[in-house]
Amino acid sequence: MSEFPSSRRESVVLYLKSLRDRIVADFETLEASQARFERSPWDYQKGSGGGEMSVIRGETFEKAAVNWSGVLGTKFPGSDADGPFFATGVSLITHMKNPKAPTVHFNIRYLETPEKFWWGGGFDLTPMGFPYAEDTAHFHAVAEKALSPFGPDIYPSYKERAAEYFYIPHRKRERGVGGIFFDHLNTGDLERDFALWKSVGDHFLEAIMPIYGRRLRETWSEADRRLQLERRGHYAEFNLVYDRGTRFGFLSGGNPEAILCSLPPLASW
Amino acid sequence: MSEFPSSRRESVVLYLKSLRDRIVADFETLEASQARFERSPWDYQKGSGGGEMSVIRGETFEKAAVNWSGVLGTKFPGSDADGPFFATGVSLITHMKNPKAPTVHFNIRYLETPEKFWWGGGFDLTPMGFPYAEDTAHFHAVAEKALSPFGPDIYPSYKERAAEYFYIPHRKRERGVGGIFFDHLNTGDLERDFALWKSVGDHFLEAIMPIYGRRLRETWSEADRRLQLERRGHYAEFNLVYDRGTRFGFLSGGNPEAILCSLPPLASW
Repeated sequence: MSEFPSSRRESVVLYLKSLRDRIVADFETLEASQARFERSPWDYQKGSGGGEMSVIRGETFEKAAVNWSGVLGTKFPGSDADGPFFATGVSLITHMKNPKAPTVHFNIRYLETPEKFWWGGGFDLTPMGFPYAEDTAHFHAVAEKALSPFGPDIYPSYKERAAEYFYIPHRKRERGVGGIFFDHLNTGDLERDFALWKSVGDHFLEAIMPIYGRRLRETWSEADRRLQLERRGHYAEFNLVYDRGTRFGFLSGGNPEAILCSLPPLASW
Repeated sequence: MSEFPSSRRESVVLYLKSLRDRIVADFETLEASQARFERSPWDYQKGSGGGEMSVIRGETFEKAAVNWSGVLGTKFPGSDADGPFFATGVSLITHMKNPKAPTVHFNIRYLETPEKFWWGGGFDLTPMGFPYAEDTAHFHAVAEKALSPFGPDIYPSYKERAAEYFYIPHRKRERGVGGIFFDHLNTGDLERDFALWKSVGDHFLEAIMPIYGRRLRETWSEADRRLQLERRGHYAEFNLVYDRGTRFGFLSGGNPEAILCSLPPLASW
């Protein structure tokens, strides 16, 4: 691992694991059953390092997965150049039992090659048939709050990139109600970029927890459930056909269980 | 449509529609409920022609889709060359309610560009957690019978190509128990190639119907059902991540409902 400045890698990984612990702890306060997140470590087969998958299957969270990973590989996936790379991040997706409670996706990641390093991440919200304007407004307001200290243009720009990224071409519409997305961030100001990236991580729970506080109390019918399962099918389509994280995972020889644990517990077509 | 020899196209389309009708009729004899295949026509938006989706959602066939399509477009998907193309075929996938009854996939297609024309197709079997050696042997024996009149090497070669095509890299195994697959067939002997292609079509029902006759009588438990839904998840992964037909459909601007109607009615991860 000597190719990389290990102190920066260490502080990034410490932040990611601490954030993962906070998210798991807050989510567990919402779970109505005795189910808890179960953590499974895995090793990266095409290099060193690995990850920890944390998965809950309960009554409130029909399935949710929070993954931390940190891998050192020899060839960056999709790149022509040889040479080592380092990639670490936290990624999560929720699938709620209650159709009125939306799916949320969050990811922050840090990558290094010998030539450069960069930050990426974001979070986005996908109602499963039942969008609430109040929830969408809150989610975007927190995203804006996370990014506004870094300049007035950042939030609109990252919001626009999320709208582009989470577009499903064959269905000709966005996956959900949007959020923020950024990648390849490196302005040359390391302190600032790291702070922005952590601000996205630090605001995620504030963006989603009040929404779950409201929606997990809603009643729902079997017809609501059927609509939810259909929308989950569209979500799985996006993840398998278009999502770069999923394709990066396959290309880099990542653990398929960790890559695919974001797929819905049950979906219909 | 004047770029193409219309008499050949017509006989191909007549054969395909007649085969579609035979398959639908035979499948309906198996259906325990009152459900029947419902046919929906659709128009090809990026050219002329279109297709007919036939979908059943019943008790025996939890979902099955038999699609005929025949489209004339202006630019062959994935090709750099401009110029018209003609593509017609029948494609089907079954998802049985009984976990002991396997999913079957069948497709035959005929394609023309101004420079060339070719035949493709095949069929393959995917047990959903419950493979029966007797079924696999029967399925392959009928495939061999369909191809043996055309030379002793054809069946082994097409069987090998199915094993390659239906391999799921990220799960490091084949999708099911195999079958036959061929593409870009044009030996210069039009009569022979057309006959081989029709023989694959004509043998499909003989390959699958006896298997359904046996397996639809098997009893099954909720645990069997859970395993089936997991295997259906893997099947959906293959179709969305790797299948060329699905990607061809998206790239060519095909009807997403027709492309995705092969996805399982219910799947779990």
